[in-house]
Amino acid sequence: MIVQIAEKKPTDHSPVVVKMVKQDDTRGKIITCKAAVAYGPGEPFVVEQVQVHPPQKMEVRIKILFTSICHTDLSAWQGENEAQCAYPRIFGHEASGIVESAGEGVEDLKEGDNVVAIFNGECGECGYCKREETNKCERFGVNPMKKVMVSDGKSRFATVDGRPIYHFLNTSTFSEYTVLDSACVVKLPSATEVDLKKLTLLSCGVSTGVGAAWNTANVSSGSTVAVFGLGAVGLAVAEGARARGASKIIGVDINPDKFIKGQAMGITDFINPRDEKKAVYERIREMTGGGVDYSFECAGIVDVLRDAFLSAHQGWGLTVVLGIHPSPRMLPIHPMELFDGRQIVASVFGGFKGKTQLPHFAKQCMHGVVKLDEFITHELPFEQINKAFELLVSGKSLRCVLHL
Amino acid sequence: MIVQIAEKKPTDHSPVVVKMVKQDDTRGKIITCKAAVAYGPGEPFVVEQVQVHPPQKMEVRIKILFTSICHTDLSAWQGENEAQCAYPRIFGHEASGIVESAGEGVEDLKEGDNVVAIFNGECGECGYCKREETNKCERFGVNPMKKVMVSDGKSRFATVDGRPIYHFLNTSTFSEYTVLDSACVVKLPSATEVDLKKLTLLSCGVSTGVGAAWNTANVSSGSTVAVFGLGAVGLAVAEGARARGASKIIGVDINPDKFIKGQAMGITDFINPRDEKKAVYERIREMTGGGVDYSFECAGIVDVLRDAFLSAHQGWGLTVVLGIHPSPRMLPIHPMELFDGRQIVASVFGGFKGKTQLPHFAKQCMHGVVKLDEFITHELPFEQINKAFELLVSGKSLRCVLHL
Repeated sequence: MIVQIAEKKPTDHSPVVVKMVKQDDTRGKIITCKAAVAYGPGEPFVVEQVQVHPPQKMEVRIKILFTSICHTDLSAWQGENEAQCAYPRIFGHEASGIVESAGEGVEDLKEGDNVVAIFNGECGECGYCKREETNKCERFGVNPMKKVMVSDGKSRFATVDGRPIYHFLNTSTFSEYTVLDSACVVKLPSATEVDLKKLTLLSCGVSTGVGAAWNTANVSSGSTVAVFGLGAVGLAVAEGARARGASKIIGVDINPDKFIKGQAMGITDFINPRDEKKAVYERIREMTGGGVDYSFECAGIVDVLRDAFLSAHQGWGLTVVLGIHPSPRMLPIHPMELFDGRQIVASVFGGFKGKTQLPHFAKQCMHGVVKLDEFITHELPFEQINKAFELLVSGKSLRCVLHL
Repeated sequence: MIVQIAEKKPTDHSPVVVKMVKQDDTRGKIITCKAAVAYGPGEPFVVEQVQVHPPQKMEVRIKILFTSICHTDLSAWQGENEAQCAYPRIFGHEASGIVESAGEGVEDLKEGDNVVAIFNGECGECGYCKREETNKCERFGVNPMKKVMVSDGKSRFATVDGRPIYHFLNTSTFSEYTVLDSACVVKLPSATEVDLKKLTLLSCGVSTGVGAAWNTANVSSGSTVAVFGLGAVGLAVAEGARARGASKIIGVDINPDKFIKGQAMGITDFINPRDEKKAVYERIREMTGGGVDYSFECAGIVDVLRDAFLSAHQGWGLTVVLGIHPSPRMLPIHPMELFDGRQIVASVFGGFKGKTQLPHFAKQCMHGVVKLDEFITHELPFEQINKAFELLVSGKSLRCVLHL
């Protein structure tokens, strides 16, 4: 087993490389540890002892050091999509940690490696993984319906009395230990504890936003950008556009608090739709000589999507959809409107092929190309996970990092 | 004036360079010549004498040698869109000919040049023309509402008793002489009469289809393609895909006659939706291991567009919209479906920047990279223009070329 020295109370200001000592008492054995278990939609998490079984072939068990909470956890926990419900369950998909043990056949990860979990895996061998154009993976792509491991259809979690606890989104990081397919574990460069804490955000929100700007849109220096919805993903889009040298980054949100926060991520102009008499897209066209080069829809609202589409410049403007759209309404775009030369695409996990590309992205973050600090608005001990959810529900936090 | 020797009865089998002799009696003067004038929606064309005024600043008057008929002429003539109606009017937008005279300021065209007309001009100076991503032109882009010249808001055509006759689609080629903005005239390499006749098709249909495959989709060797709607544009897409080395080109049409024709343009497989029990996209997925790399919608029917979209492969499949959609129905695609990684774009004039790129494309056609012969199914003297329209209405012709 790998045990972190000075496991308790990590502090932000001690950039000491996380050191490990090797103990061989857990490999191949069930680990009993703390996890936050959800027993029903919207019910408070119960932080309790669970059993975590050893990793099977091509799986990895990791010790989670930090985990944070994303809106996908929130909506899944609230049970917004009934078909995706399964209880008891361990949620969580943003986390960094250390490999405790690797199952048979895993060659790219070993005990002690610093890692982040990814919900959109990369097997490296399927038809999608072998093509450049997509970061979809046939076996380990994002799948909110999935609740057990691919290899044997079973869970690696159980209650102390042996009842199975379901997995979530290939990851289940609200636990001191979790088991993932190795396709969903990215090896990081050796990192300080402070860096590891920040790199937790690469599991989802920051990679999704920055990657949408870098990989999906390929935002260029001097270009103009509009971001609709300034949650963590929208702000990460802004940060990615800032890092690329965009000349104007317009943030759109009905919450004026987001405007203050957004300045740190490079947002240059703000629009609160509630303060506008004209359509937001008209306002943006006025501000940019006809429209932005790139617009990003991070709100999950169909009418906002149309505003984002129309705010892009004719001829070359690109709209990237990042928001999750629960409404059954179809795209509010007429086929003939496509002839104006505006394009619309969606982006999953920022277009990053996780295992291939995140290690380099992690280095870029560690070197300050992208600044992660501003995204972490709160930190709490793992036991206060319910409080962390409250912060997200109330819109007070961007990311609350839980310390395990 | 430029007069073509052996002006009458051009034959296909005489590959003699079109020779000109110079006469100076028309430059700067009104030319009285034959044109096919439309006096109302769907009314037979009246082939009669009209007056063609001299070209003004940055305009060119050309002598039309060949003109062909496209569906856009047909639907405009039928008055499908009331807002676009204007009579009397000279339709026609596919044509090749010879420059008779050039107006003040025109530097790239001179008397005697072989040219094709383009409805989607290229001024070379606007914000769109200066960017690589688009072939839109701010001043001379395709505009079905336009009926007079840009420079002075007047027509260059008049009846013999002096009443104005409206222009159509920047071109108005159903006339022995027509005046166009120089932005809408492409200088061709010196060509034989046979070549000039074929290059008429570069004005619209063939450029639109081949260009959609080459410029918009960038179809690659060995890739798979589906074409929905096998009119001239759809078949030109197939021809473009064939020229690029696509391994499978699936044609979809409810008219089985198109299937025979399509083989000459490289179509390898046919689907008649009326013969299928399952959805066309399901059939295509079966035939291609999950979907084609590129699908092209050339039917202008919203439900066909959805079939085309779903027939593209997840992760990288691209759908190119070419059809004109008169229905008010919006895109039948849910925002979340974009996350499957299928993309949809539209293509105008095949993405070609006309004046910049068509000369090279014309050479490629003359060298047989793209074969134009099969597209010309009928030839008639100009006076039989009404018969040519009947052929198109009845679906019997792909392109009927009129000899002037």
